[in-house]
Amino acid sequence: MSAPVPPGTRPAEGWFFEDYALGQRFGHPVPRTITAGDAALYIALTGARHPLHCAEPVARAAGYPACPVDDLLVFHIAFGKTVHDISYNAVANLGYAGVRFLAPVYVGDTLHSQSEVIGLKENSNGSSGVVYVGSRTLNQHGQEVLSWARWVMVAKKSRNRPAPTPILPALAREVDVGKLVVPAFLVPAGLDPMATGGTRVWDDYQPGESIDHPGGMTVEESDHMLATRLYQNTARIHFDAFAAQSNAFGKRLVYGGHVISVCRALSYDGLENTLALAAINAGTHANPTFAGDTLYCRHVVLGRWEIPGRPDVGALRLRMLGAKNVRLAELPAIAPAEKHPQVVLDLDYTVLMARRQSAVK
Amino acid sequence: MSAPVPPGTRPAEGWFFEDYALGQRFGHPVPRTITAGDAALYIALTGARHPLHCAEPVARAAGYPACPVDDLLVFHIAFGKTVHDISYNAVANLGYAGVRFLAPVYVGDTLHSQSEVIGLKENSNGSSGVVYVGSRTLNQHGQEVLSWARWVMVAKKSRNRPAPTPILPALAREVDVGKLVVPAFLVPAGLDPMATGGTRVWDDYQPGESIDHPGGMTVEESDHMLATRLYQNTARIHFDAFAAQSNAFGKRLVYGGHVISVCRALSYDGLENTLALAAINAGTHANPTFAGDTLYCRHVVLGRWEIPGRPDVGALRLRMLGAKNVRLAELPAIAPAEKHPQVVLDLDYTVLMARRQSAVK
Amino acid sequence: MSAPVPPGTRPAEGWFFEDYALGQRFGHPVPRTITAGDAALYIALTGARHPLHCAEPVARAAGYPACPVDDLLVFHIAFGKTVHDISYNAVANLGYAGVRFLAPVYVGDTLHSQSEVIGLKENSNGSSGVVYVGSRTLNQHGQEVLSWARWVMVAKKSRNRPAPTPILPALAREVDVGKLVVPAFLVPAGLDPMATGGTRVWDDYQPGESIDHPGGMTVEESDHMLATRLYQNTARIHFDAFAAQSNAFGKRLVYGGHVISVCRALSYDGLENTLALAAINAGTHANPTFAGDTLYCRHVVLGRWEIPGRPDVGALRLRMLGAKNVRLAELPAIAPAEKHPQVVLDLDYTVLMARRQSAVK
Repeated sequence: MSAPVPPGTRPAEGWFFEDYALGQRFGHPVPRTITAGDAALYIALTGARHPLHCAEPVARAAGYPACPVDDLLVFHIAFGKTVHDISYNAVANLGYAGVRFLAPVYVGDTLHSQSEVIGLKENSNGSSGVVYVGSRTLNQHGQEVLSWARWVMVAKKSRNRPAPTPILPALAREVDVGKLVVPAFLVPAGLDPMATGGTRVWDDYQPGESIDHPGGMTVEESDHMLATRLYQNTARIHFDAFAAQSNAFGKRLVYGGHVISVCRALSYDGLENTLALAAINAGTHANPTFAGDTLYCRHVVLGRWEIPGRPDVGALRLRMLGAKNVRLAELPAIAPAEKHPQVVLDLDYTVLMARRQSAVK
Repeated sequence: MSAPVPPGTRPAEGWFFEDYALGQRFGHPVPRTITAGDAALYIALTGARHPLHCAEPVARAAGYPACPVDDLLVFHIAFGKTVHDISYNAVANLGYAGVRFLAPVYVGDTLHSQSEVIGLKENSNGSSGVVYVGSRTLNQHGQEVLSWARWVMVAKKSRNRPAPTPILPALAREVDVGKLVVPAFLVPAGLDPMATGGTRVWDDYQPGESIDHPGGMTVEESDHMLATRLYQNTARIHFDAFAAQSNAFGKRLVYGGHVISVCRALSYDGLENTLALAAINAGTHANPTFAGDTLYCRHVVLGRWEIPGRPDVGALRLRMLGAKNVRLAELPAIAPAEKHPQVVLDLDYTVLMARRQSAVK
Repeated sequence: MSAPVPPGTRPAEGWFFEDYALGQRFGHPVPRTITAGDAALYIALTGARHPLHCAEPVARAAGYPACPVDDLLVFHIAFGKTVHDISYNAVANLGYAGVRFLAPVYVGDTLHSQSEVIGLKENSNGSSGVVYVGSRTLNQHGQEVLSWARWVMVAKKSRNRPAPTPILPALAREVDVGKLVVPAFLVPAGLDPMATGGTRVWDDYQPGESIDHPGGMTVEESDHMLATRLYQNTARIHFDAFAAQSNAFGKRLVYGGHVISVCRALSYDGLENTLALAAINAGTHANPTFAGDTLYCRHVVLGRWEIPGRPDVGALRLRMLGAKNVRLAELPAIAPAEKHPQVVLDLDYTVLMARRQSAVK
């Protein structure tokens, strides 16, 4: 393992494809203490309603010492830290794999992120390449709270620089159930259906079942920029309308993570008793989202796993499809990995959910 | 009194008019802990400036243990909880009555809301009906902090379902002075004119007096959606521009509560020494507000009541008129219950205000 | 020194030029307690990333008891308080001088502002005049945290009122190094380059050096209005699109302070190890900024001062140029006090930055 890239060596215009090397490591700057202000903004920006994240007594009844910070808010801040060194000059954020939520985060915790280059492949056009990185985020106690891989298309600064030897990392297609972390203190049955509004638990979701969530959310420029700035994500494509006039779309793109958060908020009704995100197995931003687009969300239940040693809680594997500007009733079933012009998000992830007490006995 | 509607029985698309029955009770999901983040966002979203809600020493000098949360922020969060079961499929939010502010709310308090159907009347067109509900909000100690009645026009899912027997509730035209709650600890004279910027107190407002507040506030799509999401209000008409293309206006409507908050913020200058909202006697959203509209506020003093046992504080009954896209100097006097095309809000409410010490002696 | 203007004497439409008199003093209403919500909003509104203001362990390592509130957030709230009495009817905010940051502010502190008229000059057109004020902001302990002078063009209400004797205050062109405040507890070397992402310190910046910061930020109506409302700044020109139809631009203007904050956030990369703002020597909003404009930032190093008694920290004098809708590479060098149609901000300010330990020995 090589030594970390020293601070102060990053060029002002950021790293380009030819600057990356296999095994290169980055300690990303600007640690961040999460506050009650961040949590409130996350609700205002997304419409999130999971009571574990906004109602202290509900969190305590489920065994938490306080409201855990919304898993996706943690993800966006953790991810945002890596942009500075990884995707500042990104052409496209291609995918995620192996995202694991390892420990709850609370208001007052301070997070910082690290990354390592795990793969490189120049594109045949010679003007860009794909960088694969493994990243992890630690809290102020040095405890890992999140780890993930992603790959991103990064521009080359100079076409003349030689291509590196292509190396593609081995990325698991899913986070194995044995790698999911369930907090020892968690009391799944403590999550009160009167507080969540739903009674369905792990046992009630059938693989293959599809849920079209009824709400829709139109994204405004201010909304996605406020969110992306809150996460201290500096990727220029989200903020600079003047420069964006000359990009392929002629305008700013919405940070894909904002799309995930809006879809998750829209899908609260129907998945009320989710305890936590445990993993994101794979994910792609299948099409760009722009301000003015209205987002809708469909879920498909992919699978249901028991968790060894925890008869009180199960893992539910879900496919989140984010669609834009279309009535979901008119959206056909989308085959695995199928592209559809209205589908902007295709996310395969795993949540924790209580199992029926009767099943426990 | 019937048993509460069990959680998990709500259809994904929400309740329609024919689903309601007299006496039906709802315990609304998603309790909410109010934080310093919510209070800061409320200021940013509305421009609120009452120092009791944003300056700790000012609140303590008036007897409060800490800054009480702005009454309207409490109202919006409390109200937002009821949308899920009451107005998710609302065509229009028709009116409020008997809103009583029963106890201060502080940062850290957790609120949840309950409702009961108190009246039903199908519209003659057979495609919608009016639902009257009484609602109340409790804090984590089970103490009632807010109660109110409202009525809302809700779509029928099927025209063929039979109409219920019409039952109209008896709603008082005003909250009687004897029902206003004044915290025992309140020290009205402790509210420093140097902190509020105004010297007028209860004694100085004359019934019939009209105040045209000088500022104006243009509402943007992001502003009202951020506010409405912060309140976890899920009414679809505020968020979904794609679906709104087919509504009567062809666009999103601004949550009426946001209009109330903006008007209250605009009216700070002229009503600086208001201690608290005590009641909303009646209120209607007389016309819709859309993004791009600029709001202005006029107040008319309706009456002045002494409060038994509290010679140091009086109740002031006010009429808040919210107008849009018009110079107030050109807006005529609006008769009681009169409709005017530029008037979007007509709210009859009661505030607490200190009385002169000389009057006490 | 005359007695303060009594509260309650301000006309509803605010003060006009002919209402001001030399020596007049104002205690501005609405003190404000700064919360974690304000700090989070400031990040979301501007994209600020200085870790001293958002990472508790980083602040403590530099000697602070907790994260100090961002200097510009303090400035905007402090400044916002003065608008009510000074610039409510401002035609233009002409300039700042002698801004001194005197003590750190922390979450929980309550600020209030005072001003005194130090100069007056009617414009030759007889319809407006320039008011010069000295202002200061105190915390809840009565400690001065900020002081500054500014001058603002204010409309006359009546052309017929006589002009006052013109009096121009003596304003220093810079805040002398001897007047800069360095907290005794500050441990400049404690600011970790791994946390900030940069290694350059005071010794590394050369007078005359120019830095074109790479990012850009497009300003939306919601963004600047949210920020300006958060600061409880009530200047009407920022909020009222309906009235603005008849102003010189036909639209709302962005609060100049928002431009400063966005430029400062954009310039984080390149000035990572700034410890604090110590002073603003002079500043002008050279051209108006409107929603839709994209802001960019260039810095020029004006000078480098040693600080008596503190060999561990130096003062760096910087010129912040904010430009809009232009590629910085195409923006020429701007001479001192030169106007350029794309330059909206020209700010001469002084920051504190660690000196190399080797220089200390």
